[in-house]
Amino acid sequence: MTKVIKIAIIGLGQVGNYLYRELNLKKKNIEIKSGKKIQISAVSAKNRNKKRKYKINKKIFYIDPIKIIKKIKPDVLFEVIGQSDGISKKVVETALRNQIHVITPNKGLISKHGDYLSKLAEDNNVNLEFEASVAGGIPIIRTIKEGLATNKISKVYGILNGTTNYILSEMRDSRDSFANVLKKAQSLGYAEPGNPKLDLNGFDAFAKVRILSALAFNTKISKHKCLMEGIEKIELKDIEIANQLNLRIKLLGISEIINGQLFETVHPCLVNKNTYIGNVSGVMNAVILEGKPIGESILQGEGAGPGPTSSSLLSDLSAILKGDIKKPFGIPSTKRKYIRCYNLNNYSNSLYLRFEVKDKPGVLSSITNRLAKYNISVKRLIQTPDKKSKKATIVIITHKTTEINIKKCLSIFNKNKNILKFPTLIRLYN
Amino acid sequence: MTKVIKIAIIGLGQVGNYLYRELNLKKKNIEIKSGKKIQISAVSAKNRNKKRKYKINKKIFYIDPIKIIKKIKPDVLFEVIGQSDGISKKVVETALRNQIHVITPNKGLISKHGDYLSKLAEDNNVNLEFEASVAGGIPIIRTIKEGLATNKISKVYGILNGTTNYILSEMRDSRDSFANVLKKAQSLGYAEPGNPKLDLNGFDAFAKVRILSALAFNTKISKHKCLMEGIEKIELKDIEIANQLNLRIKLLGISEIINGQLFETVHPCLVNKNTYIGNVSGVMNAVILEGKPIGESILQGEGAGPGPTSSSLLSDLSAILKGDIKKPFGIPSTKRKYIRCYNLNNYSNSLYLRFEVKDKPGVLSSITNRLAKYNISVKRLIQTPDKKSKKATIVIITHKTTEINIKKCLSIFNKNKNILKFPTLIRLYN
Repeated sequence: MTKVIKIAIIGLGQVGNYLYRELNLKKKNIEIKSGKKIQISAVSAKNRNKKRKYKINKKIFYIDPIKIIKKIKPDVLFEVIGQSDGISKKVVETALRNQIHVITPNKGLISKHGDYLSKLAEDNNVNLEFEASVAGGIPIIRTIKEGLATNKISKVYGILNGTTNYILSEMRDSRDSFANVLKKAQSLGYAEPGNPKLDLNGFDAFAKVRILSALAFNTKISKHKCLMEGIEKIELKDIEIANQLNLRIKLLGISEIINGQLFETVHPCLVNKNTYIGNVSGVMNAVILEGKPIGESILQGEGAGPGPTSSSLLSDLSAILKGDIKKPFGIPSTKRKYIRCYNLNNYSNSLYLRFEVKDKPGVLSSITNRLAKYNISVKRLIQTPDKKSKKATIVIITHKTTEINIKKCLSIFNKNKNILKFPTLIRLYN
Repeated sequence: MTKVIKIAIIGLGQVGNYLYRELNLKKKNIEIKSGKKIQISAVSAKNRNKKRKYKINKKIFYIDPIKIIKKIKPDVLFEVIGQSDGISKKVVETALRNQIHVITPNKGLISKHGDYLSKLAEDNNVNLEFEASVAGGIPIIRTIKEGLATNKISKVYGILNGTTNYILSEMRDSRDSFANVLKKAQSLGYAEPGNPKLDLNGFDAFAKVRILSALAFNTKISKHKCLMEGIEKIELKDIEIANQLNLRIKLLGISEIINGQLFETVHPCLVNKNTYIGNVSGVMNAVILEGKPIGESILQGEGAGPGPTSSSLLSDLSAILKGDIKKPFGIPSTKRKYIRCYNLNNYSNSLYLRFEVKDKPGVLSSITNRLAKYNISVKRLIQTPDKKSKKATIVIITHKTTEINIKKCLSIFNKNKNILKFPTLIRLYN
């Protein structure tokens, strides 16, 4: 007789509820592949009687998740509440201390407390798995930890947030404003109805970058504040001008080792229309890895939603049932080190600068003189007058310059009354 | 004291020699990640004194690989000779029977004897790993077996042969003939110098399709002869006409479940220029998976060469050292079944037909009448006369029709003296 593996699901929102159904649907399949019988022994959420898409068995419902750990003693616990601290952290901690395997899609929790929690898992000889925390259904974590285990990875980057990628694609296709498209994204369930800020300002993607760095470079999770910019300042105008220039705007997350130092960033990038990354549209995510001897590898798939997330959660379960992997980050915690952060001031890019100005003599030369003073040379300049309002839009594509240089250069435009707003800056990627 | 894991490399060609060097370079790294010390204890090849790129230790050289198995008793054996039968099969069989884990990139061997060999591995409680047999460095096998373990996959397809993809891309870019580009591919090491036939005629890609099917659908490896076409009949003319039509020619391998039946094929496809697959160029490989709940997933990377191959071979080694996976095809051999083959006659596509004809009245109508008789409707027709030679090229894009129908329809053109050669047929993909 095989022992039945007891499973607990903590959190019954969109993901938890879908997972509940998937586990019941795929029991047989999991049993065939792993040789182990599974059973959902307990579920927990704030509200027992909330209307849910897939009905749950109320006999196994508990308000208090800690009670589940102590009383039911599950073998595997899914944490799908999603807070980066608070009850999520407490549940995961308590479970690991009680020798319970934990699976979570919680990028906030892992990017903040991943080092501590993975040590806890190792000390208690159980697994802490978080495949679903980065890029939804794409098995990127398993690929780095196992598929490319012996490669020396030098760079990981890509589109890591489906919400912002949908908004940028949809603005381009529908020629509609940021505000309207955001509303559409919310009504379709792609963006949080209440507070979409963490998607829009790059925070969500940055959490994923941190997890990817730690895995790819065998380091501790960084706490540096490198460069994080979201898409809130992107206007339809920028997208249309980019289009004319054969470019597209994408929010990229980038993690790279430069001269032995770690550089992590999330910011909007202008990429060529006919590049691979320029053609990843909608809610799709894509991760590109550069390593030796593998060369360049690409993984693309749906980045969000209960389906892809469940796919990753269940792949973690399969790994645990097969007795795989004990180290959450691929190597023992003690072997993972902090590394120095690359100095952002030296980050160097061609830039897209959009100025909104009063259309009168001398304004253009005040801009170009200022750029010249900082040795920033102009590759391309497009001035579009708006005669009615006596305004003009000036777009400048510069040659490569450093962050520190452009920061100093642009500072003056805060006070110039002929320049109607501080210029919009978007970095060109490669 | 940790036990030292003894490793044998059988075959010291390009891949075996590179692997030898990689294992020595990455010893420390592997030890940190797996906690196990490794040592290359024996190597074997036909010729001890052949000049090799990376020097080998001749003290551990054996002519007879079977002697290594019996005398050295390695823990893990790499078979990198590459025959689909003969000595490759014998070495793998003998190793498995002697409880030695086997790792191989040999797609010929696995697609032909994979069912038998995986049963042998299971019976002897050792691993048989073959990540490198499909799509070089892309960890596609691990992704199907683990990353997407609980998904229901309905289709796997993609560019599975780097040689042919290089030839098709290079013909397009250089506007050079098939024969010249093939020579170039051979001089660059992308195509076998002696006999590139197995790449060109689709055989290599078909072996990979068979392995992917078995993994994706949990079936035995099929022995059906579905549809296998290579790129030998593609002329520069076809590539140029495709280009005018906003299309590109790609050799795709496709494995799909249609009405519960298995359909496997390799044939040239016309794909839209601005699709993802239309932009995978050069020696790149790409695999696209469709499944539930994952949706569409894409993996892209270098498909061939000693670097990517070694990356996959070492990921197999890491998995074995960690004590992972005992089932070569993800589930026990006894649970894998044969499934029926989809009837090729019903395979239905839009078609590109290129006729080379004598430029005289009535020829075009003899073609269109024949098509009409078989209810094949014309979507587009381009006739290009070559006045000097009194010939013309007629390209017809048809609406969807079945294989059986088009076969019957075209048969007559074998005997028509106004039609200078049997028409070139390329299927449009989607």
